[in-house]
Amino acid sequence: GDGYGGGGHARTPPPPGASLQSHNYEPDESEVWRAYVAQQHFSNRGQWWTTGKLRALKRWMLTLVVGVVQAMIAVLCNFCTISLMETKFNHVYDLLEHNRLSAIQNPDGSGGRSGEDGGGDNGGDSYGFYTADGHLDMNQDGIPDSEQQASDELSNKHWVNFGYSPFAALLFYNTIFVLVAAAFVWIEPVAGGSGVPEIKCYMNGIDLPRIVDFKTLVCRVAGVTFSVASGLPVGKEGPMIHSGSVVAAVISQGRTKFWGVDTSFAKFSDFRNDREKRDFVACGAAAGIASAFGAPIGGVLLSLEEGASYWSTNLTWRAFFCAMITLGTLFVIGNEDSEWGQANLQKLFSLGEFTSIGDGSSNFSVWELFVFILIGCLGGLIGACFNAGCENMTLWRMKNVNYSKGRRVIEVLLISFLCTTVSYVMPVLWGRCTELPTDMQDWTNQEKELVSNLVPFNCVPGKEYNEVASLYLTEADVAIRQLFHFRETGETDSSTFSSAALFLFFVPYVTLAAVVFGTAVPAGLFVPSLLAGAAFGRLFGHLLHKLDHTSGTFADSGTYALIGSAAVLGGTARMTISLTVLLLEATGNMQYVLPLMLTVMAARFSGNVFNEGIYDIVIHLKHIPFLEPEVPTIAERHEIVAGQVMSTEVKCLRPVERVGIVYDLLKSVGHGNFPIVDTASSGTLYGTASRAMLCTLLQRRAFGQPHDVNNGHYHSNPDGSTDYSELLGPKRLSPLVQWDTIERVYPCYPTIDDVLLRPGDRNCWLDLRPYANTAPYTINETASIQRTYRLFRTLGLRFLCVVNHNNQVVGIITRVDLLPESLSDSIMRGRNAHMTRSVSR
Amino acid sequence: GDGYGGGGHARTPPPPGASLQSHNYEPDESEVWRAYVAQQHFSNRGQWWTTGKLRALKRWMLTLVVGVVQAMIAVLCNFCTISLMETKFNHVYDLLEHNRLSAIQNPDGSGGRSGEDGGGDNGGDSYGFYTADGHLDMNQDGIPDSEQQASDELSNKHWVNFGYSPFAALLFYNTIFVLVAAAFVWIEPVAGGSGVPEIKCYMNGIDLPRIVDFKTLVCRVAGVTFSVASGLPVGKEGPMIHSGSVVAAVISQGRTKFWGVDTSFAKFSDFRNDREKRDFVACGAAAGIASAFGAPIGGVLLSLEEGASYWSTNLTWRAFFCAMITLGTLFVIGNEDSEWGQANLQKLFSLGEFTSIGDGSSNFSVWELFVFILIGCLGGLIGACFNAGCENMTLWRMKNVNYSKGRRVIEVLLISFLCTTVSYVMPVLWGRCTELPTDMQDWTNQEKELVSNLVPFNCVPGKEYNEVASLYLTEADVAIRQLFHFRETGETDSSTFSSAALFLFFVPYVTLAAVVFGTAVPAGLFVPSLLAGAAFGRLFGHLLHKLDHTSGTFADSGTYALIGSAAVLGGTARMTISLTVLLLEATGNMQYVLPLMLTVMAARFSGNVFNEGIYDIVIHLKHIPFLEPEVPTIAERHEIVAGQVMSTEVKCLRPVERVGIVYDLLKSVGHGNFPIVDTASSGTLYGTASRAMLCTLLQRRAFGQPHDVNNGHYHSNPDGSTDYSELLGPKRLSPLVQWDTIERVYPCYPTIDDVLLRPGDRNCWLDLRPYANTAPYTINETASIQRTYRLFRTLGLRFLCVVNHNNQVVGIITRVDLLPESLSDSIMRGRNAHMTRSVSR
Repeated sequence: GDGYGGGGHARTPPPPGASLQSHNYEPDESEVWRAYVAQQHFSNRGQWWTTGKLRALKRWMLTLVVGVVQAMIAVLCNFCTISLMETKFNHVYDLLEHNRLSAIQNPDGSGGRSGEDGGGDNGGDSYGFYTADGHLDMNQDGIPDSEQQASDELSNKHWVNFGYSPFAALLFYNTIFVLVAAAFVWIEPVAGGSGVPEIKCYMNGIDLPRIVDFKTLVCRVAGVTFSVASGLPVGKEGPMIHSGSVVAAVISQGRTKFWGVDTSFAKFSDFRNDREKRDFVACGAAAGIASAFGAPIGGVLLSLEEGASYWSTNLTWRAFFCAMITLGTLFVIGNEDSEWGQANLQKLFSLGEFTSIGDGSSNFSVWELFVFILIGCLGGLIGACFNAGCENMTLWRMKNVNYSKGRRVIEVLLISFLCTTVSYVMPVLWGRCTELPTDMQDWTNQEKELVSNLVPFNCVPGKEYNEVASLYLTEADVAIRQLFHFRETGETDSSTFSSAALFLFFVPYVTLAAVVFGTAVPAGLFVPSLLAGAAFGRLFGHLLHKLDHTSGTFADSGTYALIGSAAVLGGTARMTISLTVLLLEATGNMQYVLPLMLTVMAARFSGNVFNEGIYDIVIHLKHIPFLEPEVPTIAERHEIVAGQVMSTEVKCLRPVERVGIVYDLLKSVGHGNFPIVDTASSGTLYGTASRAMLCTLLQRRAFGQPHDVNNGHYHSNPDGSTDYSELLGPKRLSPLVQWDTIERVYPCYPTIDDVLLRPGDRNCWLDLRPYANTAPYTINETASIQRTYRLFRTLGLRFLCVVNHNNQVVGIITRVDLLPESLSDSIMRGRNAHMTRSVSR
Repeated sequence: GDGYGGGGHARTPPPPGASLQSHNYEPDESEVWRAYVAQQHFSNRGQWWTTGKLRALKRWMLTLVVGVVQAMIAVLCNFCTISLMETKFNHVYDLLEHNRLSAIQNPDGSGGRSGEDGGGDNGGDSYGFYTADGHLDMNQDGIPDSEQQASDELSNKHWVNFGYSPFAALLFYNTIFVLVAAAFVWIEPVAGGSGVPEIKCYMNGIDLPRIVDFKTLVCRVAGVTFSVASGLPVGKEGPMIHSGSVVAAVISQGRTKFWGVDTSFAKFSDFRNDREKRDFVACGAAAGIASAFGAPIGGVLLSLEEGASYWSTNLTWRAFFCAMITLGTLFVIGNEDSEWGQANLQKLFSLGEFTSIGDGSSNFSVWELFVFILIGCLGGLIGACFNAGCENMTLWRMKNVNYSKGRRVIEVLLISFLCTTVSYVMPVLWGRCTELPTDMQDWTNQEKELVSNLVPFNCVPGKEYNEVASLYLTEADVAIRQLFHFRETGETDSSTFSSAALFLFFVPYVTLAAVVFGTAVPAGLFVPSLLAGAAFGRLFGHLLHKLDHTSGTFADSGTYALIGSAAVLGGTARMTISLTVLLLEATGNMQYVLPLMLTVMAARFSGNVFNEGIYDIVIHLKHIPFLEPEVPTIAERHEIVAGQVMSTEVKCLRPVERVGIVYDLLKSVGHGNFPIVDTASSGTLYGTASRAMLCTLLQRRAFGQPHDVNNGHYHSNPDGSTDYSELLGPKRLSPLVQWDTIERVYPCYPTIDDVLLRPGDRNCWLDLRPYANTAPYTINETASIQRTYRLFRTLGLRFLCVVNHNNQVVGIITRVDLLPESLSDSIMRGRNAHMTRSVSR
């Protein structure tokens, strides 16, 4: 039929993910496109205010709107999460206190009012006192002495007093919340998980279905609100990045069919292409980070670290602007009630401000830098183990869970039960009560507030707290701040988190986080990593402090917690510069720039010895054809040329083709692009046509009658070149579909199944010349894989025509052909595979 | 001769800068290159430790060395500058004090000891007291009452007491220093100016001669030491960026002939290409910023903002690593003497740490953000005026000064005299003495130190200071810190810089800075802009404070100084993200992230209304073919295709060519690359050969005897394609020059003048096929300028072959063809210029 292809190898079976389409960042430079552009230039002639300037203005305005909307979403999401968690924890704390007081009355835990030993005399009063005033009195100091006595006794009998009712309440709330979160993922499966890998793929140029739809946004944001509230070890930062991206995509495209209404505005048609959409998504991702951490520059850098291949200076400024607007909006919303508009620094720095300990000297010594490098290396190890755990869990889950939505929900419920149990049993096991610090004269407001947030799990409220419960049974943000900023007092670490408590928290928490990762709830990874890392770092600091605590600030536990956070998150996600800036912005103290840099760099290096970053692992597990920024390492060990890696199954069309042939071709193969070759001129490449374009043409019946063209035979000159003059003359079909028609259809192009041909149509002629992209990117078959990869990846191409010296198409390279697996195949195929000319005439 | 070219237009006259060569970031993918790569792969087969890994290790090690060396250079340069300035100022302060005391003795200023009125009684003692103990007693407090009286009288008579001797001393030192600085620029002219535009061009892909040579490094660093010490309004930050880049280039290439010794090490031959060199230069630039401001992340971002087009994730990490090492080295060197290794924050934050005023609230109100935006806009205006002034000065200088080295030195001397006069006369004119603050109980160490740095110009040392002199007659860094951190006390601004003093400093200083910019001394722009901006911002803050000073921290003058700095520097250099991070890192307080972002963004927007950034202005004035990241705006108003912009003066070679023809071609044209076309196969593109390669081949006599080839006539098949089998057979010349030979010659390739042909050589055959780059980047003549520009700029190409559908070369595009001027020419030439087929057969 098409006269080409089939001469080479056929890759069997097709790699998974081959069905995913790439984005198309370049317009098809066809005659109709040129006519459209020329018309625009004509309408702008001599004017100062051109459509180009209008477009730029609209672009900046939309970026501004994206920033504001994302900030509002973040505020709303945050408010809901905190409300849900407060409701839950207030109820649970109430029941715990109830339980404690009744245990004082009935110390044997039998449940009846037997009152056989001490504490029973005023137990009734205490109970009554409690029920009368509710939990608001929890933190008051006037606790009867006898209660104190009873409490001391109680600490030796914690097994007896497990407290079934608070546990049941906790389980009830967590199960409800997790069910709601899972329900949103049930509605829209792509709303599950972190969202960062998906956005990474999107910025890499892969068109994952539904990833930037409005429905996804709703499910993602609502789902993460509940999944965070359910007490699972998940964060809302990854989903916030995703949310920002979707907001940007939705607002810039101005079109959704979620509510059954087409809300498209013709005004934004300028931005209806993959390139503009991608740029907006990158800006939105930066805004997402800015809204999650209050880290605008970290957000820009994260976008940039992931999308560096196509990054432009203009895009930097837009992402910077978008993140700035988000932060500004948060700032204004967060501080509307403060006196004289003074911003509250606790609201500004999402992880709490690190204050300098000494006047004019840093919080760490010069030689502690080497300790930080060591922590970084350990963090890399922990991250590598965590990643390996996640990978194996996900592999198991893909085999045994993921094939049914019901199973996924059951898995989530089981895991939620596990998490709830651990987070309740661990404090019970710990059982010890630690006294609150009493001398807080020189403490900052932030530190005083942190002390009031400690959890009196089975301890006397306002006087004591349970160290383990203060980490497990609280919001993750608060727990991170406790670890970062709760001051060590005295020579011994009596009134803070002890090493044993940190250990009892760190190990189960990391394990649970690895188990949770990848389940069917929206779940970010940043906060769990930061929290686990903070516990690890503080633990490390404690051990160091025991070695030598005579010297001033050596082994300041807050500093070590920060470094530990950076190490573990760096070891998990393998980010460097964006993570450093992010933590600096979230903690507000610039003196940590060098320690953080050293730590994340060390974590990255040591982690990379064992495996890749968690996001890359997820991408590979999902078999998404993700192109790394650099040529795969396999290409460094073997000589590979473009002619080897290309797919030789090229289906070509002629410049003027029968409708029937085009229809059959589109029906039979799923390719996204088809080279158009000039059969008259010894098969040189004339241009390319995209599937979307061909389907649109067929659907709009842009073809002529059989007699309009000279039966498809060209008149060739004696020297072998085609004489187009005849076809370019009056007999030539004028283009029946204009560029703006095609642009307006984006991105919902018709498929071949939408095309209905009438009986006589198959013999009609489709003149592809006005629609063909006449300047496709090509590469010679002798080009090295390095050059090919760089061309493809740097320009974000969708396909690349491989030609020989005579400009004849010998193959086509798509994203899938450049993956490491495909390159291995190519090496098997041998060095001179491309010598077998696959183009037959 | 060559049978091609000449059919199209000839651009007359050639644009200036056309002689500058582009870098070559891609290897010529020829047969010898492939053989070399294959040999490397063969030697690595089955091994774990491959040469690729060794190369990566070496790359990281060299990056580490670059970081350390640049830190040491910065420390040395800093130490020398401070020593020179201290010597100068101590002497001048001594003479000033001497002058003051003698004026008290002789208040009429007649010079003789007439003693006709008050103060003469113990004047002699006072004089004797001074000479006995020297200037070390300057700051003591025990000043006789009579002296105080005299001083009060004196303030009304400052005109009488101009003080010729301190002025002469100042002039003497400044002239000597500026002469030394000018001498270094005399030795190496490219060491003059800021250095940032040059590095920007280098990263853009332009091979400016001698810009990364060792000699340039020496002259640059030594010159800037003296030019800063000479009291000109110049900074050392721009030159430090340049220095870092040169250090990186020199160390990575391991080769210099500056000392007459070839210090090349064969071990670093892996990095002997433009791509590796550029990457090292980018890392070095980041290290330069890190060393100048202690701002490693700002450094990475600056490199990235300038080099975003080719930026890769790997390069981010390397630049990050390099900047980190530099900062770490500075940190270790700077703190080696501190107790227990505690770092001094004053050393960590180069512009002094901003402390938070209130506990837990920010230093600014929410609505002050709008004031900051206003300051940003004003800063953009100031920057635009400054840039326009610099541009006009430079244009005048290019016409009237630059043609002679002597004139340039005389100009520098005159400007130095002007600066010295202004900086001395202004304090004299001011004449008022302000009392030092006395109640400094709750001041930080940093503030106390700043107070001790105030200059008692004709005032009582230790009790009073001259506000204007404290800004003019001190190091610029200290002046910036004064403006940033000197505390306002009381309701009135009595004990700090008054508005009038700030105005008297700001206006002349900005004017002088614009005059100095572009003279023949190494001169950075960052510090002058920051200093001028700080004065402007503080002035603005004062005016606001006068409007309403009842509210807490409203219009904190230090904050306004910082914002003013950001505004003016942002308005001058038009950087956004890197400048924000840089200032945050240099002042150490993260709460300013949003104000700084808003300010620099506003400055950029408002400045761009009037002109471009100063660095772009310099680049355009020098007529360097700099390619902007985006397509020039002219392309947005006109439809331009590749066939229009290309140069049709293509000189082609045949795959096997007579030596004489090659020699004549190289002699007659200066092109850097020549397409090789297959005349037998209707002139399709076979490959390309670079000038460097051709000269090397000729010099090494890699050609065969006239009878080795079938007289240069190919045997053509009936279908028109060439039958290479005959030539590929045993008769084919084996490559006589291997790839590593060519790589080893880099970058000092022979020129055509180095080639000496013997009489019989002209008839010999040069077989170019093993050396031809068979996969050059090509573009179809119908491609739009947008696509062409993106391909060229994104991949950092040196040239781009324009072909038609039959792969025949119709033109060639180089950097010069894509400049806005050339594009305007193309539009004149008309839409269908490319239709005139320029290739004759």
